[in-house]
This record gives sequence, C-alpha cells and structure tokens, in this order.
Amino acid sequence: MTTIAIDLGGSRIKIGLVADGKVLKSTMLDANSGHGLQNRLTTIEDTIRRLLTKEEIEDTKGIGIAYPGLVNWKEKRVIQGNGKYTDAPSVDLEKWAKDVFQLPMIMENDANAALLGELYYGCGHGAEDAVMLILGTGVGTAAVMGGQLIRGKHNQAGCLGGHFPTEINGRPCTCPGRGCIEANASTWTLPRLIKEHKDYMQSGLCEEKMIDFKTLKEYVLIQDKVAVDTLDYCTKTWANCIISLIYAYDPEVILLSGGVIKFGSILLEPMLEYVKKNVWTPWGKVEFRIAENTEHSVLLGLHWLLNKS
Amino acid sequence: MTTIAIDLGGSRIKIGLVADGKVLKSTMLDANSGHGLQNRLTTIEDTIRRLLTKEEIEDTKGIGIAYPGLVNWKEKRVIQGNGKYTDAPSVDLEKWAKDVFQLPMIMENDANAALLGELYYGCGHGAEDAVMLILGTGVGTAAVMGGQLIRGKHNQAGCLGGHFPTEINGRPCTCPGRGCIEANASTWTLPRLIKEHKDYMQSGLCEEKMIDFKTLKEYVLIQDKVAVDTLDYCTKTWANCIISLIYAYDPEVILLSGGVIKFGSILLEPMLEYVKKNVWTPWGKVEFRIAENTEHSVLLGLHWLLNKS
Repeated sequence: MTTIAIDLGGSRIKIGLVADGKVLKSTMLDANSGHGLQNRLTTIEDTIRRLLTKEEIEDTKGIGIAYPGLVNWKEKRVIQGNGKYTDAPSVDLEKWAKDVFQLPMIMENDANAALLGELYYGCGHGAEDAVMLILGTGVGTAAVMGGQLIRGKHNQAGCLGGHFPTEINGRPCTCPGRGCIEANASTWTLPRLIKEHKDYMQSGLCEEKMIDFKTLKEYVLIQDKVAVDTLDYCTKTWANCIISLIYAYDPEVILLSGGVIKFGSILLEPMLEYVKKNVWTPWGKVEFRIAENTEHSVLLGLHWLLNKS
Repeated sequence: MTTIAIDLGGSRIKIGLVADGKVLKSTMLDANSGHGLQNRLTTIEDTIRRLLTKEEIEDTKGIGIAYPGLVNWKEKRVIQGNGKYTDAPSVDLEKWAKDVFQLPMIMENDANAALLGELYYGCGHGAEDAVMLILGTGVGTAAVMGGQLIRGKHNQAGCLGGHFPTEINGRPCTCPGRGCIEANASTWTLPRLIKEHKDYMQSGLCEEKMIDFKTLKEYVLIQDKVAVDTLDYCTKTWANCIISLIYAYDPEVILLSGGVIKFGSILLEPMLEYVKKNVWTPWGKVEFRIAENTEHSVLLGLHWLLNKS
C-alpha cells in the first residue's frame, strides 16, 4: 500500500510517496520553521499536488507526518517543539489531512520514525533491541526494546538522549537544561565551541563565516589545532551519549545516522574506540551500523507506521 | 505466602522472612564480599537456621536472592559484579537452595528488587512508570515502564544509571568507564572528591580518618567550604542523573532511596531544585517520593517476585 510521508525538518521539509519500503518520488522545500507550521500548510498541499497525480493521492493509505519535537502519537498532535514550528501544538493536522486530501494521518517524532525506517527497510534488519543516534543539526535518539518502540507515559522516552546532561552549570541548551549532549556537541553548537577554544584567534576557522562539520573536517585534515581538539571533544561527547544509551536500553545494535556521520572514519573510529574502551557489556560487544538511507529513513518509518496502523 | 529473602549487599548481607509485604523477622551479617560468595554460603545457611524454625523454612514459597551487579534472572545466575563476590558467576545458587533447603529460588539485581519493594509495598503505590535512584555506597537505579520492570536484552538495562558517563576522560570508576555518575558522586568516591578540593589542607576534613556523607554533613553544618562545595557538586551530579533517567524512561514518579538520602533537606532541596530548573517535561512535573522502607525494600521486592512467579 502506498503512503504519503512528510518529514517536517527544522530546515527542510521532505515529502515522499512510499511503497513497499521504497521512496518512489520525493521532493523538498524550505522549512521556514521559524515562521510556524500553519503558514506552510498551503505550500505543503501545493507541493504534494505537484509531486503526485490525483489518482496517486487517492490510492494512498494515508499521510504520515514526522515532527522534530515531542509528539503525542495517540492523539495525533504535537506536544512541544524546541523553537521549531512553535505554533504546531495548535495545528490540527489530522483535520487538515482529512479536509484537504480526504486521507487519514498518523504522526510520530522524527527520530522515532527514522529508527523504524532503518530497522525495517534499512540497516537494522529487524533487530529487536536497537538504539539510533542521529547527528544532525542537533542530536536525536530513539530506541526499541524487545521489538517495541520506546515512547513512555508522556511520549518523551527514548527521543531525548541528546539532552542527557553531561555537565553541571554547562552551556545553555535550546531545552531548559544546560550542558546537554547536543549543547556540547552538535552542528548548532559548533560555532560556539570553536570560539571558546583558547587558540581560536590563531586558527583559520576564525575567518570562516559559516562553520559546520564539513568546514571542521577541512581544518582537521590540515591539522588545525582548534579543529582537531573540537572534533576530539565532540566524538568523546557522542561516545558518552552512546554509553548512556547502551546502559539505558541494553541494545544489541546501535544505528548511526544524520549528516554528520558522513564525516567518515576520522570521526567514527575515535568515537567507537572510546565507547569500546569505556563501556561495560559483559555479554559481548554492541554492533554498530551506519544508516543505509539517511535522507529517507524518516519517510520510510512513517510508511511502516501507516501500514501497521 | 511467606518467603525467605537474602540481600547480598556489598558490605552487609540481610536475611528476612517476609509475608504479605511485611518483614516478619530479619538479621544481618558482614558480607566480606571481597572473599567471595561460595565461602559465605555455610554462614548464610547457619544464619537462616538460627533465624527461622524448621517449620517456618518448610512453609515458605521459596528463596529470593538479590545481588549487587548484573543478574540473569531467567537463568538464575550472576552475570558479573563490580569487585563484589567476584566468584558469584560460578556459584549455582539455585542448586544450593534446593540441596540445602529443598526450596525453589529466584534472583534479581538489588536495585530492581528495591524498586519493586517500594512500588508494591512502600512509597510507590503501584505507579506504572517509575524510576528509583539509590544513593548508597555507589549509585543504583531501576525503572518500570507501563508496569513492566526494565531489564533489557542482556539484563543490563535500567540498573546502570549510576554509570551514565558525565565527563570525558573523567575519574576512573569501578566499571571500565571514567567520569560515571557514581565515580563523581557517591560514598565510595567521596574521600577522593574531598582530597581533590584546592582547599582540602585548610579544611578540618583533612584530619578525618573515615569520611562518609554523615561526616560531610557535620562539616556542611559548620559551613566548611570544602564540605559545602563537595555537597553542591554531588547534589547537582545526582540531579543530572535524575534528568537523564527522566529522559530515558519518562516516569511519573521518582523514588529516592539509600542511606545518603537520610542526609535530609540540605541535600534534597538543592538536588530537586536543580532538576526542576533544568528538566524538560512539558506534560507537567515528575513527583518525588522518599522510600518508606530503605532498609528492607530489597527483601520486599524479592518477596513480590517470588509470589508473582
């Protein structure tokens, strides 16, 4: 059964037509998430109508929507975001899907959807105990135990590993906390990290206007001290996040995803080495797998949820 | 139905006869856990025979044993400890219970048993989503979600929150890791923490031979700077552990237990204040409850497990 999947990312919205665990067609638009969700609905509708024929829309089982924040999947509503689409809790997306496309909808947190997508159509191969770490703009996490997605009493279990606090009175985060994993190591915090380095003014990085992990990699490759130290700090911070996730959910496999993973072995090797050296798993070794479908795992997970519902 | 419950603590072994959620009789013996478990079995047997009559033993449903480390509850064996009773994985306690007392036995991690004890016979009042934090010699944790004890694929989920790493290359722990919660804030690490303080030599604490949280409290009450700073560091470290546990398991209630909790409001108030200020729970506020039966919650939890089995 085909489905329409919408991934409301913080910077881009992805829309796809999915069938049998494959994205048949897809497109992207700017999120403008700072301007709210209600304002984007007409554009999303138009984009779907341009991407799909009337027949394709009518033939789908429904619409799946992923949101980058806390989601009440049972009531099909956004609980709260983190500065992204702040009006989302008041937008009735179920009504929108019904009024505009005459289709049912389901909703899920984006990291949860990404984990399900990789688990059933990607690198997860149906593992029953798995954790996903997504290194993107922030740090997303998700977990399944015994084949069940961990959601929790108030839908905030599993997806907030990026906010495990690692420091006392640390760097302010986008959440109410300080010193969270993603406040210390993520794309959005990277410019702040670099500027805090004592040798920042001696590094070529101080002349870069836009700094992301792609920029950082260029400077790591020329052995820039600020870049090398910052990468070391980030990889170990993420390694500690992985260790906490292993202790929290006891997985057999860790799925790694997100744009930053493309950084490659100079990030992955020290990160996994630090985990290996410091983790306590007397039963054996947790396996690591890289997401097969980073770009589309959220769409695929929504598809799986729709077909299961 | 009555049960015999044995709590193999790191420093003391507690043995009790439990019926209807009440400890009818109990006794304690030194653990000598550094000398192994096999060597203690005859003494444990003798202690049970002194505590209970032949009829009382025969009338019980079985023996429950709690171990301070990883336990395979299905196979009724110890997986691995942490320097305590290091021979335990090779000791067949099921055979011992059968040979010596002709009784069936069950086994559980001590923090898991403590949580169940408080949940069903103490302050938990049957909460379905709850986390326990035990501040004792180390830091123990346990969790239930939707009424189910979190154990995980390899029996190490839930009980290792005291080993969530909070620092990169931090203080060595008793586990293979560094900078774990309990390496940074626990009774066993306290002497090390105090000695690291820059004003240690100016504090009266440098003349104390044995330092635990009771000693620390005395110095906090006279406003000793080393003591005040150390308490502040510990309370915030535990607060961060609680925040991670809230994000991991999404509980409605946190149960606080362990000897250190007796420290009172000068520990509890700043700890809960730090949690409140830094945690992200848009659904409302997690409730905190102090264990009603710190001394016996492990015995009560074993009793509940035996009666359920």
